[in-house]
Amino acid sequence: MRTDAADTYSYLGPAGTFTEAALRQVPEAAGKTWRSVNNVGEALDDVVTGRSIAAMIAIENSVEGGVSATQDALATIPGLRIVGEYLVRVNFVLVARKGTTLEQVKVVNAHPVAYGQCLEWLDKHLPAHGHLPAASNVTAAASLLTSEVADAALAPPNITEHYDLDVLATGVENNPNAVTRFVLVSKTRELPARTGADKTSVIAELPDDTAGRLLEMLEQFATRGINLSLIQSRPIGDALGRYRFVLDLDGHVHDERVADALLGLKRFSPNVVFLGSYPRADKQRVEVVTQYDNDAFVEARDWLRGLLSGEPASPAGE
Amino acid sequence: MRTDAADTYSYLGPAGTFTEAALRQVPEAAGKTWRSVNNVGEALDDVVTGRSIAAMIAIENSVEGGVSATQDALATIPGLRIVGEYLVRVNFVLVARKGTTLEQVKVVNAHPVAYGQCLEWLDKHLPAHGHLPAASNVTAAASLLTSEVADAALAPPNITEHYDLDVLATGVENNPNAVTRFVLVSKTRELPARTGADKTSVIAELPDDTAGRLLEMLEQFATRGINLSLIQSRPIGDALGRYRFVLDLDGHVHDERVADALLGLKRFSPNVVFLGSYPRADKQRVEVVTQYDNDAFVEARDWLRGLLSGEPASPAGE
Amino acid sequence: MRTDAADTYSYLGPAGTFTEAALRQVPEAAGKTWRSVNNVGEALDDVVTGRSIAAMIAIENSVEGGVSATQDALATIPGLRIVGEYLVRVNFVLVARKGTTLEQVKVVNAHPVAYGQCLEWLDKHLPAHGHLPAASNVTAAASLLTSEVADAALAPPNITEHYDLDVLATGVENNPNAVTRFVLVSKTRELPARTGADKTSVIAELPDDTAGRLLEMLEQFATRGINLSLIQSRPIGDALGRYRFVLDLDGHVHDERVADALLGLKRFSPNVVFLGSYPRADKQRVEVVTQYDNDAFVEARDWLRGLLSGEPASPAGE
Amino acid sequence: MRTDAADTYSYLGPAGTFTEAALRQVPEAAGKTWRSVNNVGEALDDVVTGRSIAAMIAIENSVEGGVSATQDALATIPGLRIVGEYLVRVNFVLVARKGTTLEQVKVVNAHPVAYGQCLEWLDKHLPAHGHLPAASNVTAAASLLTSEVADAALAPPNITEHYDLDVLATGVENNPNAVTRFVLVSKTRELPARTGADKTSVIAELPDDTAGRLLEMLEQFATRGINLSLIQSRPIGDALGRYRFVLDLDGHVHDERVADALLGLKRFSPNVVFLGSYPRADKQRVEVVTQYDNDAFVEARDWLRGLLSGEPASPAGE
Repeated sequence: MRTDAADTYSYLGPAGTFTEAALRQVPEAAGKTWRSVNNVGEALDDVVTGRSIAAMIAIENSVEGGVSATQDALATIPGLRIVGEYLVRVNFVLVARKGTTLEQVKVVNAHPVAYGQCLEWLDKHLPAHGHLPAASNVTAAASLLTSEVADAALAPPNITEHYDLDVLATGVENNPNAVTRFVLVSKTRELPARTGADKTSVIAELPDDTAGRLLEMLEQFATRGINLSLIQSRPIGDALGRYRFVLDLDGHVHDERVADALLGLKRFSPNVVFLGSYPRADKQRVEVVTQYDNDAFVEARDWLRGLLSGEPASPAGE
Repeated sequence: MRTDAADTYSYLGPAGTFTEAALRQVPEAAGKTWRSVNNVGEALDDVVTGRSIAAMIAIENSVEGGVSATQDALATIPGLRIVGEYLVRVNFVLVARKGTTLEQVKVVNAHPVAYGQCLEWLDKHLPAHGHLPAASNVTAAASLLTSEVADAALAPPNITEHYDLDVLATGVENNPNAVTRFVLVSKTRELPARTGADKTSVIAELPDDTAGRLLEMLEQFATRGINLSLIQSRPIGDALGRYRFVLDLDGHVHDERVADALLGLKRFSPNVVFLGSYPRADKQRVEVVTQYDNDAFVEARDWLRGLLSGEPASPAGE
Repeated sequence: MRTDAADTYSYLGPAGTFTEAALRQVPEAAGKTWRSVNNVGEALDDVVTGRSIAAMIAIENSVEGGVSATQDALATIPGLRIVGEYLVRVNFVLVARKGTTLEQVKVVNAHPVAYGQCLEWLDKHLPAHGHLPAASNVTAAASLLTSEVADAALAPPNITEHYDLDVLATGVENNPNAVTRFVLVSKTRELPARTGADKTSVIAELPDDTAGRLLEMLEQFATRGINLSLIQSRPIGDALGRYRFVLDLDGHVHDERVADALLGLKRFSPNVVFLGSYPRADKQRVEVVTQYDNDAFVEARDWLRGLLSGEPASPAGE
Repeated sequence: MRTDAADTYSYLGPAGTFTEAALRQVPEAAGKTWRSVNNVGEALDDVVTGRSIAAMIAIENSVEGGVSATQDALATIPGLRIVGEYLVRVNFVLVARKGTTLEQVKVVNAHPVAYGQCLEWLDKHLPAHGHLPAASNVTAAASLLTSEVADAALAPPNITEHYDLDVLATGVENNPNAVTRFVLVSKTRELPARTGADKTSVIAELPDDTAGRLLEMLEQFATRGINLSLIQSRPIGDALGRYRFVLDLDGHVHDERVADALLGLKRFSPNVVFLGSYPRADKQRVEVVTQYDNDAFVEARDWLRGLLSGEPASPAGE
């Protein structure tokens, strides 16, 4: 069967990863081809070259890579757009081959980052265990069925849907509230519709490293009543001390105040990358004071148009 | 002879005042009817009622009244527009009836404010003099010819063009560099053309008296690279502690950055009065960093339009 | 009788002026020598030379001169301190010689500014009147008893305490709520005690006229949670376009946040004049958010001292 | 031999890692016990429990973990201090058992992050290779000597000092300029001496998530002329959308402006963690405009002390 790019979604695989759990939240992806890749670079390359219509990648607080790699890739690869945001709770289970007991576990197979996130539990319940590193959370579990080097593996909770393994313990992670934020990235130029609970992502450089430049950039948002839910400095990479900023704004570019702030940002910054406007995963509506709602923008424009038109004066201050 | 309102200019008279000197700088007023009035209120009333096409009034650092009265009138009388700005050097001469010598001067006729501005010279050269107050700088001199109560008068330098008097001393003012700023006010809705050396005047109220509100208002200008040449708080008058701000911005409302800042100001402030854009009296060109020139605004709009249009992507950051 | 400077207060006289009404509000001045002078310059000169212990002068919205003259004098004469603030309601009465009726009034004697402030009433009730200018509101009334050129005079309401005149009309002013703000100025270095309802006055220059400099100056106050009740730009006078700012801050220099803001202002501005901290005339207590109260300053200092002292660590964030 | 905690430094090992390369830059660590640990958590735990005097950990742009984990650990573990900063260039070599040629390489052993950073070279020169994941950059190389599963390994350039291997290729990383920033963390309360080329690290929470709060926080630095070389938002972890900020300030807490800014930050933020002042790795001197140098702070304090002392006045503006 020939797969069409328009029907393909790339994700950090294989089946069973947290990234796959994020992709399951995308209604449009249901019933389509899901292409498992090995890292963020491959996933975005699929999108750029047209092998896939979209890629799901981790962007914040990930256990599967992502974050810095994702932010830097989005900053430098032209033409990408974020079209959706998804949250996945990052819990782990300890799994083993059928019939294994916890007492029998000597070696634990685990992705290094996952291993660090479960170390408290392991140190307490398996103080004498050894660690065999794996390339991903899923291969750690999968390899239990093909090799006997390890006795158990750390894996996402849904791993047993994919592999015939026993769960020895659940909730073995240090922080049960850990969440990874994923974004769905595509080359589409079509913007997701405004829902009232939206986010807009941009990446911008400062004009120079004079003290106060960052402040000036943020004033572009403050003067339009826009809250930032994420601000992260990332080295540009050409020289030490040069930074770009990854910014998440509350609101959609179809909100007047967001569009106006982007205009201000574009004038201020020598390099702005618009990454898209999309519905927030937490569906929390953006609260705007009346002063900065769409009506205020329309009203101000009408007022200015009146001033410039040479029409008869309206009463002062109205 | 019937005078047409369209041919009449009001000014604080009579002929010979500094205000008249300002009106002489207006080419369009040459050969028209000049209507002498007694104060700023009368002058603006002429404009509002249509008795005159425009009025010349002092707005900063005046010896003939104006300033506060002018600012408050402009803030509250609807439909007025500043269409020109003029500077007049405020120097004084001491004049007397033909044949009078300085030694003979016992009583000096002078407008109270002018008197204060020349007191240093008078105290030094006429330590025993008395002061007879006058209603204006010109009536002080004029009355020398109709009454002998005073022996000399303080007057503008050009007074001898109007009255047959001897000049006993020139440069008698405390500060030889004193300048009064005048504005020509009209009801026209037509904006003076942009010259590149322009000023825009507005009056705005703060939304409330929370600390930092003024700062927020000024950020509207800073984020567009606009310098303020005047900022003055004036009590609104309805309650103590409530202020409006008289602001002069470098630039013309036909400059993109000024128009954009006015939109921002309008959204921020519950009450904005636009007083006009007009050529600066000092003809000093407004220097704008590239970041905030018209091209930057056009470019930013094009960029945003591209983002929203669904057109194929251009390279990142362009 | 020899008057001691320590017992003398200068004010814009003569007895009966609004300035005198302000001086009456000063308990310490009761029973002392009140020296009547002719203008703000003379009043401050009395203080500088030691002729008087203090001078009462108008600083905002005056009908007797003051304001700009006062602000400029305070900016340039070294060693002056504001020690008190007083408000006087600016109402006028029309007075005449005993037995005169309103119908008999042909010529009105009045200080030019007072005349302008009562013109609405005069135009309505005495449409055919003439105006004789006076040097002050009081001399206008006083001269009725020595000359018959004028039939009536505009004067402060308490004028009849000083002169034997009939009141023909009260409340003849255009705006019955007009208030003039006066300050008592002295050379003392002792600060009035903090009351919790205080004001601090300073005058500061901007380092240069770069866009955003004013904003930077105001940030010094915003970052300490300080509200400004007055901000006024005044030309420095050495060159057009160079301004100094007269600022009134809510709070006393003995409030930690005010002292800290003055330090910040001093570092920022090439020229700061501290005019004093003194009780507000309106006795309105200054509300400060907890974040910026004295405790917050003490706590922060303790915290920093702990950091620098090499003492054992306290828990993170405490 | 008994090792004393005061003589022990913890680092992400084993010998040969980039972290070890960072530790080699610390003169005080020469000749002391170096304790190899497996992750940031273990390294900091050594410091907290007193097993080590200090730990070297990656804080920015790491290939060995660190960054987020490091920042979150520093924010939540009380009593830690950064005492030094070190930069290590992140280059890789491809190593193999003696006598192996590039053509013979079928399987490459590599830490997953290192693998991603060298994928461009591998895809080009070894298009058919397989990837065997390793727990660290060093174990990848070390395992070549104990197992024949892999034919080559990615490793830091100095790996051949520790293991008897052949270098098949150098500079195989995607980005030859990649640098990882490391910090040396200890429990000492003694501050490294001010060098003039220093950095101060703090972590602070915003008081609430009102728009403009971040701006207000940054104004604390701008009003003291302080540049930020790093600003990074990190989720606090108690609820989605709550962030703390990791900030690197140019300057030492013994610089007046930095101490003053920390006071301002402490008052503003409900939770500030001071992580220390220490010499910059790049030894770049911090340039301060005169306005904000130490003298300006001393001068301002002297000025304020003079104002409050009741001493005779100095000339205005001095």
